[in-house]
Amino acid sequence: MKSRKIVIVGGVAGGATAAARLRRLNEGAHIVLLERGEHISFANCGLPYYIGGAIEKREKLLVQTVEGMSRRFHLDIRTLSEVLRINRSEKTVSIQNLLSGEVYDESYDTLILSPGAKPIVPPIPGLADARTVFTLRNIPDTDKIKAYVAEAKPKRAVVVGGGFIGLEMAENLHQLGIHVSLVELSAQVMEAMDVEMAAILQQHLRAKGVALYLSDGLKAVEEGGSRLVLQSGTELAADMLVMAVGVQPESSLAKEAGLALGSRNSIRVNEYLQTSDPHIYAVGDAIEVQDWVSGQACFVPLAWPANRQGRIVADTISGKPTPYKGTLGTAIAKVFDLTAAVTGNTEKVLQKRGVPYLTAHIHPNSHAGYYPGAKPLALKLLFSPEDGMLFGAQAVGEKGADKRIDVLATAIKGGLNVWDLAELELAYAPPFSSAKDPVNMLGYVAQNMLEGEVDTIQWHQIRDLAAAGAFVLDVREKKELEGGFIEGAVHIPLDQLRDRLAELPAAETIYIYCHAGLRGYLASRILQEWGFAVKNLDGGYKTYSVACQEMNNCSLATPELVLQ
Amino acid sequence: MKSRKIVIVGGVAGGATAAARLRRLNEGAHIVLLERGEHISFANCGLPYYIGGAIEKREKLLVQTVEGMSRRFHLDIRTLSEVLRINRSEKTVSIQNLLSGEVYDESYDTLILSPGAKPIVPPIPGLADARTVFTLRNIPDTDKIKAYVAEAKPKRAVVVGGGFIGLEMAENLHQLGIHVSLVELSAQVMEAMDVEMAAILQQHLRAKGVALYLSDGLKAVEEGGSRLVLQSGTELAADMLVMAVGVQPESSLAKEAGLALGSRNSIRVNEYLQTSDPHIYAVGDAIEVQDWVSGQACFVPLAWPANRQGRIVADTISGKPTPYKGTLGTAIAKVFDLTAAVTGNTEKVLQKRGVPYLTAHIHPNSHAGYYPGAKPLALKLLFSPEDGMLFGAQAVGEKGADKRIDVLATAIKGGLNVWDLAELELAYAPPFSSAKDPVNMLGYVAQNMLEGEVDTIQWHQIRDLAAAGAFVLDVREKKELEGGFIEGAVHIPLDQLRDRLAELPAAETIYIYCHAGLRGYLASRILQEWGFAVKNLDGGYKTYSVACQEMNNCSLATPELVLQ
Repeated sequence: MKSRKIVIVGGVAGGATAAARLRRLNEGAHIVLLERGEHISFANCGLPYYIGGAIEKREKLLVQTVEGMSRRFHLDIRTLSEVLRINRSEKTVSIQNLLSGEVYDESYDTLILSPGAKPIVPPIPGLADARTVFTLRNIPDTDKIKAYVAEAKPKRAVVVGGGFIGLEMAENLHQLGIHVSLVELSAQVMEAMDVEMAAILQQHLRAKGVALYLSDGLKAVEEGGSRLVLQSGTELAADMLVMAVGVQPESSLAKEAGLALGSRNSIRVNEYLQTSDPHIYAVGDAIEVQDWVSGQACFVPLAWPANRQGRIVADTISGKPTPYKGTLGTAIAKVFDLTAAVTGNTEKVLQKRGVPYLTAHIHPNSHAGYYPGAKPLALKLLFSPEDGMLFGAQAVGEKGADKRIDVLATAIKGGLNVWDLAELELAYAPPFSSAKDPVNMLGYVAQNMLEGEVDTIQWHQIRDLAAAGAFVLDVREKKELEGGFIEGAVHIPLDQLRDRLAELPAAETIYIYCHAGLRGYLASRILQEWGFAVKNLDGGYKTYSVACQEMNNCSLATPELVLQ
Repeated sequence: MKSRKIVIVGGVAGGATAAARLRRLNEGAHIVLLERGEHISFANCGLPYYIGGAIEKREKLLVQTVEGMSRRFHLDIRTLSEVLRINRSEKTVSIQNLLSGEVYDESYDTLILSPGAKPIVPPIPGLADARTVFTLRNIPDTDKIKAYVAEAKPKRAVVVGGGFIGLEMAENLHQLGIHVSLVELSAQVMEAMDVEMAAILQQHLRAKGVALYLSDGLKAVEEGGSRLVLQSGTELAADMLVMAVGVQPESSLAKEAGLALGSRNSIRVNEYLQTSDPHIYAVGDAIEVQDWVSGQACFVPLAWPANRQGRIVADTISGKPTPYKGTLGTAIAKVFDLTAAVTGNTEKVLQKRGVPYLTAHIHPNSHAGYYPGAKPLALKLLFSPEDGMLFGAQAVGEKGADKRIDVLATAIKGGLNVWDLAELELAYAPPFSSAKDPVNMLGYVAQNMLEGEVDTIQWHQIRDLAAAGAFVLDVREKKELEGGFIEGAVHIPLDQLRDRLAELPAAETIYIYCHAGLRGYLASRILQEWGFAVKNLDGGYKTYSVACQEMNNCSLATPELVLQ
């Protein structure tokens, strides 16, 4: 092993991690780290925050310098060195020194590909010619945006794409006093979440002054970038345009070398991250992985998998074979004052897979409501109706979303079910949580559903049922109706319910709702014990109203009409 | 079932939870909730924060009112009603109405005891006669302290006991501008943690101006409470004295009824929370539980177990038998700017149990260091040297301690091992974590130990080894020595190590240390690959120096001596 020569293509995330780990396990190996750009191992997840000014100093982005990392890990690091070709039969790579133009071959015993992913730039008329178009992948991209903002002092930015980078760029440009319009082809931002959870983010973005153009796309770029035409016909004036519609694997090198490719042209690897050539491994954003929940092949360009893969590929190459067990897709973003976090499969994915599932929405406080600073937290759980196994979870809130998603990601990877969630003994003192943590509550709600204690309906179902004349019962306090209600609902506050059973239909299903679902559940229990057929609105009026408002197809009557 | 009558003794935490759950499952049952005090279901964990002013309004402490809860859950709630006796053969309890003095019997089909725990007040001379002595268990206790502080404007408070309530009271009295002295019989505060983790809290308490008297106890109270004499002979002037030396189960009622008692006179129950009388169940602070890790009987008066037990006892009584699977002892406290959190067994407990264990300490940032606001987080993991199973974990830091302990508590209850910790796919974006979360790092460190990649020593071992003349190697940068070092250590910065191997002894074990353990690990790997025998200081100088400074028996030479 000590005499082996390992060449790594790509010096960020997975590549840099692999190099450091290889050295720790093989003091004598020759390790060559090739990077096309100028920088290795930079803070790519920090780039938007340097643009926005939260990260003040550029050098903070340079987590490892070439000099520092070379010395510490005794690595042969060559930046500005582009690999042009993999010569598999010779076991060499052809490298071009981008400074001198010189091309030379370098041999390898083992090759690790860590080329990453690059922003997709669709073929939109006028885009290629515009001078004020930016993408964000690396330090030079960041420098360009930073310099442009400083010099041109743009007033209006258009961000195309409402995913992680699009949202982070929207926030950071807004921080600089620039008016931001966000254009997204699908009907929601944050495609990694379900629509009713994304709706909370959308309301927040609007409240912050971001103009949202959903279900709309960029059709043409005119006047060198200062006029943008959307597919809807809307025209936007723009001083700068950020394209953040997604990334694609940098797999051309692998493809030209004849390595097998997988979904979305990602590099196909086996569980030991070995490509179709046994001497070549691949890690990071460019590879195909298995979805941890479904086992299906997918492409998940995130930092955690890249880091993990970089480490274990080094272990495998060093004689400690370690399989990569798949990607759960746990992800998180700060969206202005909110945090949006997700793990596992969304409802959309489960629908596409055709897997039966159940859903629970809750709106607890981030910590005990009587202690100052508690904030509402929207949580969604997806689980199996058969055995209560967890499929995925989503959280949106000002505080504590990261903690609950981390606990749920741990539960999913640990193979826990909804009953286990109720058993989790989480840390409680008033500044941190409640005696029943929100994750426990999710467990209890799901368990109640599976054990037949309560039957629920979803926000989109009650909308249609109410329109069709079903019996809908609002059990909130009268005062709460001022904030809106479902038209046609009969109003009986929970605490009056036992005395007013005679007002309820005996032969018809009663659809109950309250603010967040808890009182609706209590009402369901009472009525169920009295022999009524009931269903409770999951997540209550809170989930319903935000989702409907964002759908723009909800009939919210003015409160005066009912309070007369 | 509907005709059954269930009587619950104790209307806080477990009792109130059981009552509400019983009603949800049995609309027709007669449920009587008896409470000796005036209030039910109050925010007992919030009491110190109301005293300190963080919680401004007293009514915030009253989570449920008698009227509100009676109406919502159709309960027969009787406050100021003390149960004097359980008449097991008649299946009745004798109740005294504390307002009228009237005594009457109430029958039950099933009885649930939720009497809680009460502060221990040791028989110290002068204590019973002092007018300025307080304990904190309920709302009247809180009112007393609040009124005394407002009227007497005390300048100096002495808190006896450095556990959760003692520390919370110290902080909250300090918030009011009162000088606080904390007296603790053991050598550390926060007995629920190990000494080197508690040392971080102690330094913080001292920095905030709290006077600590450790390994010392209250011996006598003189002059009506204004002069306190400690066992060491120290005398403290005090305007108020808070006794927070722990609690004991309120088990006298159970004892007099002949029910079996367990450790520390807690009420013994089976896994279905049934006492030795099959018609009587018990929940909450007063009962004996099994330690989740060891299976041993113990007494853990915390809110989560009480809440959980209240729910499942109701399930069991309602025909859905649900076992209580034991208590992990997950606990957390805010200690001024720090959070201290713990789950599972401590090193102290493992030593007492005689179980072989390994320890890993790390000092990561709470989130990516390049994003503003990252704070150091001290983490300790205890795990099995045989199979890597997790025994317990501790965290101290300004941010993110709660999240990591919740993840680790989930991992322990999920039966995960140290390899699984490395596999946890946790949510990463710079404001929340790092691509390798601190929990992943704990997994990697522990895995490296178990796979023979690194051998570690603990802070207390290197102290003795250094004193005995062992070869100790400091691999930090020269600048860092100014903050202190281990006397006698040879200094070679990590990045010079490969060039200075000749300065190292070939036949002797080299004890390596750096700031937090990571560079020491890298140095260990290099030297191990070169054939040296090495051990790395777990947790580095950071764990070592804080612990030693707090132990007061570490020889910290002045840096000038070595930098000459």
